[in-house]
Amino acid sequence: MTTTWDFGVSHELDLVERRIRDSLASEEPLLTEIAQYVITSGGKRIRPVVTLLAFKAAGGEDIERAVDIAAALELIHSATLIHDDINDGGTERRGRPAAFLKYGLQEALVTGDFLFTRAFRIGGKFDDDIVDLTAKVCAALAEGEIRQKRHLGDVTVTRETYLDIITRKTATPVATAARVGALVGRGRAEHVDAAGEYGLNLGIAFQIVDDILDVVGDGVTLGKRPGMDIKEGNVTILSINALQDGNVSDRSELIRILRKRTKDWGEVQTALRMIRESGSVDRAREEARAFGERAVAALGALPDGEPRRKMADLVEFVLSRDT
Amino acid sequence: MTTTWDFGVSHELDLVERRIRDSLASEEPLLTEIAQYVITSGGKRIRPVVTLLAFKAAGGEDIERAVDIAAALELIHSATLIHDDINDGGTERRGRPAAFLKYGLQEALVTGDFLFTRAFRIGGKFDDDIVDLTAKVCAALAEGEIRQKRHLGDVTVTRETYLDIITRKTATPVATAARVGALVGRGRAEHVDAAGEYGLNLGIAFQIVDDILDVVGDGVTLGKRPGMDIKEGNVTILSINALQDGNVSDRSELIRILRKRTKDWGEVQTALRMIRESGSVDRAREEARAFGERAVAALGALPDGEPRRKMADLVEFVLSRDT
Repeated sequence: MTTTWDFGVSHELDLVERRIRDSLASEEPLLTEIAQYVITSGGKRIRPVVTLLAFKAAGGEDIERAVDIAAALELIHSATLIHDDINDGGTERRGRPAAFLKYGLQEALVTGDFLFTRAFRIGGKFDDDIVDLTAKVCAALAEGEIRQKRHLGDVTVTRETYLDIITRKTATPVATAARVGALVGRGRAEHVDAAGEYGLNLGIAFQIVDDILDVVGDGVTLGKRPGMDIKEGNVTILSINALQDGNVSDRSELIRILRKRTKDWGEVQTALRMIRESGSVDRAREEARAFGERAVAALGALPDGEPRRKMADLVEFVLSRDT
Repeated sequence: MTTTWDFGVSHELDLVERRIRDSLASEEPLLTEIAQYVITSGGKRIRPVVTLLAFKAAGGEDIERAVDIAAALELIHSATLIHDDINDGGTERRGRPAAFLKYGLQEALVTGDFLFTRAFRIGGKFDDDIVDLTAKVCAALAEGEIRQKRHLGDVTVTRETYLDIITRKTATPVATAARVGALVGRGRAEHVDAAGEYGLNLGIAFQIVDDILDVVGDGVTLGKRPGMDIKEGNVTILSINALQDGNVSDRSELIRILRKRTKDWGEVQTALRMIRESGSVDRAREEARAFGERAVAALGALPDGEPRRKMADLVEFVLSRDT
């Protein structure tokens, strides 16, 4: 992580990175190259940190197994990033061109499949309950993607639908990362559930902050142009808040822009400005913090100690991040 | 199978179909719909037949496990078909529009991911050696797809490269279907190897026949327009034979057409005619038969009996099919 935050698992994270890198070998060098391009692009590695901390908090000892499953989940995450970029027509990811733009759609699509495969090669060796969780997270991702697509440009999207979509696309993966960490650590059932509850709320907070950054963020530190959600038609908590309760200067103009299939960057800027001025950002920050607090509250059921304290730190990190 | 051939596993095949159908349930109805559209499109179900027969030939008893793994492999196959169609820009598959044309690229892409997930949910519950084989077959498919793409319109492709590509894309999946059938049937190591050798050669024969049908087939029974390989730039054993040893009326014209990035259907017809007249089809039929004979020879190491005889019948079926 490119941060001064220390969650006490940097050595184990290095092992995860190595495990991922080792799994990318292929007889087709281009597959390895594209996979490395995506995976080494400096992601936040939130999920592996969560897995490792939940593993430790649950009293886990055989770190190799936690490293393996964390690597598998991160491979799945990378696979979905590649496919999502194709789906969204995303142009940049962490300051670099999306894989499909650099290498071609077909090459990127196949590399995504390849990464899924490598993930399951690792994940399939675990017990049935872990395989089930891993498969479910992928299904949730697919369902979330379809649901998001169905609601593109739909200004009637409710807060509930928004939460449903981000739960599937972001929070379930983090919850799963936490649950499998505790499971692999041979944690008791209530510890596994607490870890899952923590991860779910942390994941929702993470996504709300992500959506806030798309409205107020700085393109340079963000690594992508702000306003992409508006440009692509993703209705987020920011626009929902603005439309439902916000003090919007020209509500019908904001609706008109959000519903347009193709928007120019001038229109995106106009929408961003109206959303910022509506007070929607502050409300979203409060909501993110509320989910963060639920995540911290869930930690109460885990054994006290350094890992649990680091899990609380991670909530603060997620809430305060600006990239 | 839409044939009068009977391989003695129709009851078990029904169980595989049911297992596949049951696994397609999703909270997102569109995912289920697209998945069903692809899976119920009347594929030949060669791989499940191979798994079931190899299972029986190896003396397997717990048919549920063979059904499960056969379903998992067929789900993977369907996932790759969806993604391949996107990659190839394929317009029809078995007489119906490709899923991405009917439902949209993004929806189809995500459905492919969803099917992979469902496959691994089933497959991940098997022993490590079976998980490894399943993951390897997916990697081989990805590698084959990349390699094929790299050689599009490349008239210098050798017979070896062609065999390498079809081994990864078609024969390895059939070989894996056979190996896992024997493994799940708790067959001895030499039986597993024999089944794999059978499947590998059967798969190569199958693909050569497929490539022949693309040159001589009837669009109506084929369910897709003949000449697609030429149109898309896939160099097959038919064009390789024609260029290397065939009696081609206008070799430089054939090369010119094959190398063109975009060909009109008139050019495709011209190329098809030249390939047909070159004697290349008969040679390819001989080659397919040679691989078929190797498949039958491999059966010698399996216990004699009804399943083994049906495996030999399947070779004849594959060699004689016209759709």
